[in-house]
Amino acid sequence: MRLVGLPRVGIVGGGQLCRMMIEAALPLGIEVCVLRRSTDESTSWWGNSVVGDLGDPDAASRFAELIDVATFDTEPSSLAPLADLVATGVELRPGPFTFRYTDKARQRRLLGRAGFPVPEYVILRSPAQVGDTLKLWGGPVVWKAATGGFDGRGVLMTDDQREAESFVAGCQSVVVAEPLLALDLELAVLVARSVTGETMTYPTLITEQVEGMCHTVVMDPDLDPVLDRRARDLAVQIAHETDSVGVLAVELFLVGGQLIINELAPRPHNSGHLTIEACVTSQFEQHVRAVAGLPLGDTSPLHPAAVMVNIAGAADPTGDGLAAALSVGGDHVHLYGKTARPQRKIGHVTSVGHDVSALRARAQRAATAIEAGAGPGQPAVGATTGATDK
Amino acid sequence: MRLVGLPRVGIVGGGQLCRMMIEAALPLGIEVCVLRRSTDESTSWWGNSVVGDLGDPDAASRFAELIDVATFDTEPSSLAPLADLVATGVELRPGPFTFRYTDKARQRRLLGRAGFPVPEYVILRSPAQVGDTLKLWGGPVVWKAATGGFDGRGVLMTDDQREAESFVAGCQSVVVAEPLLALDLELAVLVARSVTGETMTYPTLITEQVEGMCHTVVMDPDLDPVLDRRARDLAVQIAHETDSVGVLAVELFLVGGQLIINELAPRPHNSGHLTIEACVTSQFEQHVRAVAGLPLGDTSPLHPAAVMVNIAGAADPTGDGLAAALSVGGDHVHLYGKTARPQRKIGHVTSVGHDVSALRARAQRAATAIEAGAGPGQPAVGATTGATDK
Repeated sequence: MRLVGLPRVGIVGGGQLCRMMIEAALPLGIEVCVLRRSTDESTSWWGNSVVGDLGDPDAASRFAELIDVATFDTEPSSLAPLADLVATGVELRPGPFTFRYTDKARQRRLLGRAGFPVPEYVILRSPAQVGDTLKLWGGPVVWKAATGGFDGRGVLMTDDQREAESFVAGCQSVVVAEPLLALDLELAVLVARSVTGETMTYPTLITEQVEGMCHTVVMDPDLDPVLDRRARDLAVQIAHETDSVGVLAVELFLVGGQLIINELAPRPHNSGHLTIEACVTSQFEQHVRAVAGLPLGDTSPLHPAAVMVNIAGAADPTGDGLAAALSVGGDHVHLYGKTARPQRKIGHVTSVGHDVSALRARAQRAATAIEAGAGPGQPAVGATTGATDK
Repeated sequence: MRLVGLPRVGIVGGGQLCRMMIEAALPLGIEVCVLRRSTDESTSWWGNSVVGDLGDPDAASRFAELIDVATFDTEPSSLAPLADLVATGVELRPGPFTFRYTDKARQRRLLGRAGFPVPEYVILRSPAQVGDTLKLWGGPVVWKAATGGFDGRGVLMTDDQREAESFVAGCQSVVVAEPLLALDLELAVLVARSVTGETMTYPTLITEQVEGMCHTVVMDPDLDPVLDRRARDLAVQIAHETDSVGVLAVELFLVGGQLIINELAPRPHNSGHLTIEACVTSQFEQHVRAVAGLPLGDTSPLHPAAVMVNIAGAADPTGDGLAAALSVGGDHVHLYGKTARPQRKIGHVTSVGHDVSALRARAQRAATAIEAGAGPGQPAVGATTGATDK
């Protein structure tokens, strides 16, 4: 039975972002159907789902019959299956126009041409171009596959020609090369845009990477308010330029006081997980509101400061480690139902309050307890056993 | 696939309390299986479920195989099926000992005998006892079916002998009669108790009934702190006395400065819905933590004041009314996925902030917009059509 009055929302991909979208959609009474791969553990318990992916015409057409609008847990690897979905009459939020910008080469070209601040870049189609590229700027170069990379995969930082050539040769897509910049900070702005073009931005966040993967995100009350405003204004312009619907994550470099665009993700994003506790309306509620055509919500912070730390795990996250983390008090643990494997993001912890360094210590302690799979002072059971199949 | 380390949690009954327990269990990575009736709309989209009830031995045994511990969205109508579940090795949290207290007659006897403050009462087994009962106190009497009543059903307030006799004759259980008290306030305390007997209480809440059904709940910063402390202490004593596990709702009368026990509900309760936004750990997260054997969470308020208003509806809650309610800003809407029918609770709105009267007006405005099924100033589409079957 479907409640009338709201579109039925399809989510393509059943990972943790989908899981947290469902958590946000349930209180609003929004009907959600998930198109998930059989390996998507985060939403395996969701009844209203179709197993398969957009590249599978049978699954895609069954999915299309159950929904009115579709949104995405994962960027589609190509735009062709999106067109098939559009042809069924399903409305995509965001649509193919926006997804052009998730190709890193296309994003640089389109945004650069429109006058947006992008880094210097070269697009390589062959390893033979690596030598000349290395001569351009001097010093290390960042090599990024235009499509398919995430969490540090598909990215290499080196000034070694052989290593770079081998990386370029191994990529399925063209490669974007950029000089390694001396960053003052890495920032992220979550901007929500409605189907009618209204926008709301969240406070600018500071993101900290470890080995190319987001590790810690900070909402810092001491961030320069002028910088905050500039970053938010830039994100709004990009949301309009890319015709985004729902949440768009804009990752920025701060270099010598200048904001430069790093990456775009047209969906809720790891940098915005702390909005669940830190802001009136979370990025997930905001996204499903926009996708369902409901008014955007208030993005004001509920606390002066917040820190999120990812849990990347090898140990079972639901054992004694969880109990230890929850006994810290005031930390908010989010687990994604995923089997633990080394370096795999399986959850996050958010702490909210006043003092960034205290919150950082608290959230990190809770995340470490879960990663270790045991309480403080106890042996980290399973922490070194690697991938398991339980 | 099941993550090891936490018990698999079964929830008996798939109504809105179960829905909100699932919303709280998901972030903690707790596996939930629901035993739901085919008519339970609030959780019809939950994949991991068994359709049936505890009285159906086949459904109950399939349910028992999928879980390690069980808790309850709805009080069982009798204790016998609980014993069958216990016999399968499933641990009940709370267990049959606690459920004795949801029988209003038994509750009065057990708590009165243990020295707890209960109202004067008489237990009637036959309409023939009504006449004498009416002579006892003078003035109107409250007649309550000992079991099976909720939201004002199973309760009558009258000094008319014929009316009372007819009510008693129609009840499936014995009837508790009590003098109608002149209430200063109705209060509720949510107390959480772990399997190891730790307790945590939430701030004492003021509840307001309309036609016997909870309408508004207020967390009021001006509530006398001595009264708050007395009510919380009393609730803790009752939690220990009843051997409760998880959240226990203790509804209290304040009469001439004295606290008197009204009703107990050994589960998350309508009076505690505002804890989702108003407190660090919601009553639902608290309940699933306790049931799963995890540490209890911080119950501190995040805001000085909060007001919850129920949505009891006849109109489709997901139409223009939802959009109008969400455009108010700062209100938190919770819909339960239930088909609207007159007087049926289909959701609630919580507003948090500083000023109770402003919050009350805001939450009521949002609830009214949803109940009317249309934005302010627009016709209330469907508001007078009564029950529908969409």
